[in-house]
Amino acid sequence: MVKKFVVGVIGAGRIGKIHIENLLRNVPGVKLNIVADIKIDDELKQWADEMGVLKLTTNIEEIFTDPEIDAVVIASSTDTHSKFIQKAALAKKHVFCEKPIDTDLERIKETLEIVKKAGVKLMIGFNRRFDHNFKRIHDAVVSGQIGAPQIIKITSRDPSPPPIEYIKISGGLLIDMTIHDWDMARFQANSEVEEVYATGGVLINPEIGKVGDIDTAVAILKFKNGVLGIIDNSRQAIYGYDQRVEVFGSKGCAIAGNDTPNTVRIFTAENTSMDKIPFFFLERYMDSYKKELQAFFDCLRNNQDPTPSGEDGLQDVLVAIAAKKSLEENRPVKISEVNK
Amino acid sequence: MVKKFVVGVIGAGRIGKIHIENLLRNVPGVKLNIVADIKIDDELKQWADEMGVLKLTTNIEEIFTDPEIDAVVIASSTDTHSKFIQKAALAKKHVFCEKPIDTDLERIKETLEIVKKAGVKLMIGFNRRFDHNFKRIHDAVVSGQIGAPQIIKITSRDPSPPPIEYIKISGGLLIDMTIHDWDMARFQANSEVEEVYATGGVLINPEIGKVGDIDTAVAILKFKNGVLGIIDNSRQAIYGYDQRVEVFGSKGCAIAGNDTPNTVRIFTAENTSMDKIPFFFLERYMDSYKKELQAFFDCLRNNQDPTPSGEDGLQDVLVAIAAKKSLEENRPVKISEVNK
Amino acid sequence: MVKKFVVGVIGAGRIGKIHIENLLRNVPGVKLNIVADIKIDDELKQWADEMGVLKLTTNIEEIFTDPEIDAVVIASSTDTHSKFIQKAALAKKHVFCEKPIDTDLERIKETLEIVKKAGVKLMIGFNRRFDHNFKRIHDAVVSGQIGAPQIIKITSRDPSPPPIEYIKISGGLLIDMTIHDWDMARFQANSEVEEVYATGGVLINPEIGKVGDIDTAVAILKFKNGVLGIIDNSRQAIYGYDQRVEVFGSKGCAIAGNDTPNTVRIFTAENTSMDKIPFFFLERYMDSYKKELQAFFDCLRNNQDPTPSGEDGLQDVLVAIAAKKSLEENRPVKISEVNK
Amino acid sequence: MVKKFVVGVIGAGRIGKIHIENLLRNVPGVKLNIVADIKIDDELKQWADEMGVLKLTTNIEEIFTDPEIDAVVIASSTDTHSKFIQKAALAKKHVFCEKPIDTDLERIKETLEIVKKAGVKLMIGFNRRFDHNFKRIHDAVVSGQIGAPQIIKITSRDPSPPPIEYIKISGGLLIDMTIHDWDMARFQANSEVEEVYATGGVLINPEIGKVGDIDTAVAILKFKNGVLGIIDNSRQAIYGYDQRVEVFGSKGCAIAGNDTPNTVRIFTAENTSMDKIPFFFLERYMDSYKKELQAFFDCLRNNQDPTPSGEDGLQDVLVAIAAKKSLEENRPVKISEVNK
Repeated sequence: MVKKFVVGVIGAGRIGKIHIENLLRNVPGVKLNIVADIKIDDELKQWADEMGVLKLTTNIEEIFTDPEIDAVVIASSTDTHSKFIQKAALAKKHVFCEKPIDTDLERIKETLEIVKKAGVKLMIGFNRRFDHNFKRIHDAVVSGQIGAPQIIKITSRDPSPPPIEYIKISGGLLIDMTIHDWDMARFQANSEVEEVYATGGVLINPEIGKVGDIDTAVAILKFKNGVLGIIDNSRQAIYGYDQRVEVFGSKGCAIAGNDTPNTVRIFTAENTSMDKIPFFFLERYMDSYKKELQAFFDCLRNNQDPTPSGEDGLQDVLVAIAAKKSLEENRPVKISEVNK
Repeated sequence: MVKKFVVGVIGAGRIGKIHIENLLRNVPGVKLNIVADIKIDDELKQWADEMGVLKLTTNIEEIFTDPEIDAVVIASSTDTHSKFIQKAALAKKHVFCEKPIDTDLERIKETLEIVKKAGVKLMIGFNRRFDHNFKRIHDAVVSGQIGAPQIIKITSRDPSPPPIEYIKISGGLLIDMTIHDWDMARFQANSEVEEVYATGGVLINPEIGKVGDIDTAVAILKFKNGVLGIIDNSRQAIYGYDQRVEVFGSKGCAIAGNDTPNTVRIFTAENTSMDKIPFFFLERYMDSYKKELQAFFDCLRNNQDPTPSGEDGLQDVLVAIAAKKSLEENRPVKISEVNK
Repeated sequence: MVKKFVVGVIGAGRIGKIHIENLLRNVPGVKLNIVADIKIDDELKQWADEMGVLKLTTNIEEIFTDPEIDAVVIASSTDTHSKFIQKAALAKKHVFCEKPIDTDLERIKETLEIVKKAGVKLMIGFNRRFDHNFKRIHDAVVSGQIGAPQIIKITSRDPSPPPIEYIKISGGLLIDMTIHDWDMARFQANSEVEEVYATGGVLINPEIGKVGDIDTAVAILKFKNGVLGIIDNSRQAIYGYDQRVEVFGSKGCAIAGNDTPNTVRIFTAENTSMDKIPFFFLERYMDSYKKELQAFFDCLRNNQDPTPSGEDGLQDVLVAIAAKKSLEENRPVKISEVNK
Repeated sequence: MVKKFVVGVIGAGRIGKIHIENLLRNVPGVKLNIVADIKIDDELKQWADEMGVLKLTTNIEEIFTDPEIDAVVIASSTDTHSKFIQKAALAKKHVFCEKPIDTDLERIKETLEIVKKAGVKLMIGFNRRFDHNFKRIHDAVVSGQIGAPQIIKITSRDPSPPPIEYIKISGGLLIDMTIHDWDMARFQANSEVEEVYATGGVLINPEIGKVGDIDTAVAILKFKNGVLGIIDNSRQAIYGYDQRVEVFGSKGCAIAGNDTPNTVRIFTAENTSMDKIPFFFLERYMDSYKKELQAFFDCLRNNQDPTPSGEDGLQDVLVAIAAKKSLEENRPVKISEVNK
């Protein structure tokens, strides 16, 4: 009989619950032993009970000290990620951690060092790499179907802005939102970013400008292999969650459009119409959360290094920091400028 | 606390397993007590164990005698449907039964009579009514968005033919395969069929002809409300499971295309291409199996009559029988001719 | 220098004007000498002048007696077609004639006999065979890309009904409108029709029923090579001129959708929309009128037999007459029943 | 009777011939008197004869001295544009001139001054503004259907690079090719460019790099009204002439895809495919050439100022010059820096 990986989860918020549900139902070969969160209310208790979670605790240390546990899934708040990764690694447990590792470069590097020394595996939750559309684009690149990539275009627009309170502490659009797109661009380019130029404006809500952020952004990336990337972001696409990727190469072009809730077209005297694209990121990306966890445990099972790796997590934050500097100074910024 | 409906399942074959998995994971407010099948091997035992099925039995009577059980889900072979519906009804249990109720008209009517007297609810598993595309078409009809329906077009083609042994006993294409389309046409027309003309040929595999069946069919339906329906079927669409519906009405037209595995288009020097449509009916209709069971228990919860009803099950078989007569005699056949 | 074919046109109505404009501008290697019509008003005179028509006459005989004229394009009223074809043939002039040749079978056969004896070429104006979409479908069939055809599906719906006065004399929907679809089905099947079942109803305008016609039709065709065809027609598709063809074969399926005025999709908070499909047959088929005349003169230039041929014109009328009989008697009718 | 505008054409090369053909056939209310070119060979003579051009001359001055001529269409080489515009204006003739007016800013301004003093109308041939797709996008912007524009995305890729000899003298990709996109961005933004950042690389053909140009470019535009623009260009899209525009606004998004030669989708065991998009700019934009000339003469007829105006021509060149400076200095460049 095949060994089951015993798992502990830290954090049972919105994303944590998705991981828990997937571990219980959709990821073969795992056994979820403990879910830890700093706060457990009745609602969470009932949800965990219905789901079939065996043990719920506020004592996070239990995860690290439980000798049975092979792997830890970290879905707690961002500021705790590096601390918990380190603890798990020191306890010789493999780690799947939500993005980003940290917002402080030194702490990220220190954490990766500890992981390396511990010899455990680390995967960062850039789930969009596992999306059926973007994975298919990547396959077209890797298989050579569209030749050598030359231009990567990413459109990534949220349906509505987060609360101003969140924007104040998130690091801003180029950090909290574009981080997914920096990673997607690197994923499709198969290369590291050399230079980034980012700019934008406050076109949606002046309140966002007042707290020092932008709500609309465009950026150009130059990769070490010569590939060029362009990204556009908006905090508010009134028609839904607009998520598209295009890779143009020497032998062709692969374009991923948005998902649609159904295939029905309605022809009337006025126009031809279709239903709106999905509005919420969970509708859009649910399947990718399942697939990333499956991939993580497949790697453990086959003793392979998972991707997106810790190094991916580091590189994405480097691009984000350079992009923010570019926005502030209105000039292209090399990654080497921010990676001392 | 809300009452949970206690459920017993009869039949743990391919479709039965789907229902069991949905009852355990995706249908809220139910508790699955027993799964009964006439044959239980080690594979089934292991599967049930992993799924979390509490009790597995070869004694089907247990389902009917268990006083806790509120509802029975029947997914056994077709020839047992009417018998088990009757038994469940007599035991005052609600019934969800896979299509068709029976192939014998008298037995269907007798069964519906018993259900009626027992005062239990009966739903027949025409899952396609719950498909996201075909449901959306129906919504366009019911909401008046496309006006009064005038022409209904259904394309329904299997990726590959069933074994010849199955065709010998299935009643033939117009019964085993088109039954879904007769139901879909009735669903979209919101009316009963008055007359059917069906014809076809053996264009794929001569072996199918040798056992007295056709492998390619076309049919025209006239509904009591004047709507006209056209259906085309094939046992073998080499490109995948081709499932499309179109309703043309006085104010517009609603057209549902096939689902696609992703939205990616690849542009090359040769052509523009997309991935194939899904090949297997489970890929295509998985979501509809979940939604039909949810709908069934919603009806129980709210004391509403579920559809597709037993009467729907009867009407669909009537159309199938008339269609087969039409094929044999090469003339339009009225439903009244076969419904004595 | 290459010889130019000298052409005379009979009939300067709506279709005649299209042919005249194409002969003057878009068909290389021709010289238009005379345009004849039984009635020439000031508007026509001015139009002809602006177009650059050299000679306009009410004396149709001039066309047949002009020794310079090599080919005659007939776009006069249907009841004059066979007479003018015969006259042109006897004068040893090649003929391009609008569909149908005639509505009387004997007269068609007599006309084809005269054409044959005269040794001139005859092409019938089933322009849709030259449409970019339907031609592409046909190429997919002929090239073997989709294997042997098995099912042909034609949707052909007019945006709005013709005047009742027209319907009274046109022969009815199955003759005046479906004639294009009988031809399209034969074109795609590469075979002759063996049997047709046609039915329909009055779902749009009761006035149409009062003059003995239907406004909505569906039909099933059986071809000699086993191919099955299904056609649906409506006199009124409120969303535009709905013209689609699908051929399903042993190796694949080719589907032609409607043309659209542009490729723009508009995403809003309400839905995703596109502009309506073209409303008028001239918008839709303009290019095919040009291409059919080019094809006709290419055949003259290369001494090839043009298609659609006179025999095609005959076969299409045979199917139309059988379809009408089928509608009247509500039974499948063999072509051999009407072709004595 | 309505006055016809008498027209003279300068230049009978590839684009000149298109204008000549349109003036003769597709632009109502005009009379083409003279076509002038510095070189007239037998091929041109024959073409002009077949077209019905009345007079062909190598004496360009005839155009300016002919008192009958109301308007001049200039399609000669770029270095002659400003000279001929000036001559025509001084002769009190309206001018339609191919883009760009000139590559020297001073000469453009001087030319516009002369046009202004002469009181004649001037239109610059940015034909893409009249393309059915891009015009539809613009309508969505102007009508408010998608609210205030926020992001404009333009993809403009040629099927294959021009000869190296052309690149040497054209001013380079950002001038000769992107000029259309600078204009398109301004057209959709309804505002002037404030700053541009352009960069790129040599990813297709090293020879292009050797003559000091790039073959792949990306650019970001900031408009005075806050709109952000992103453009990507390639000299070689192996799959055809890739021309797409997207405008994202506060109330929605309008996306124009490429035209396709037909609507046919082919479903096979391998994939679903469509024919390639058009490969050549004439296939793609033919209709827009017709419409721009019609618009020009409509303006003359109604005494309105045509757009794209001379000022548009100036602004587009300003952006191009700033973009080139940006590429050279790898920094965002303000238009005010180059417009002294």
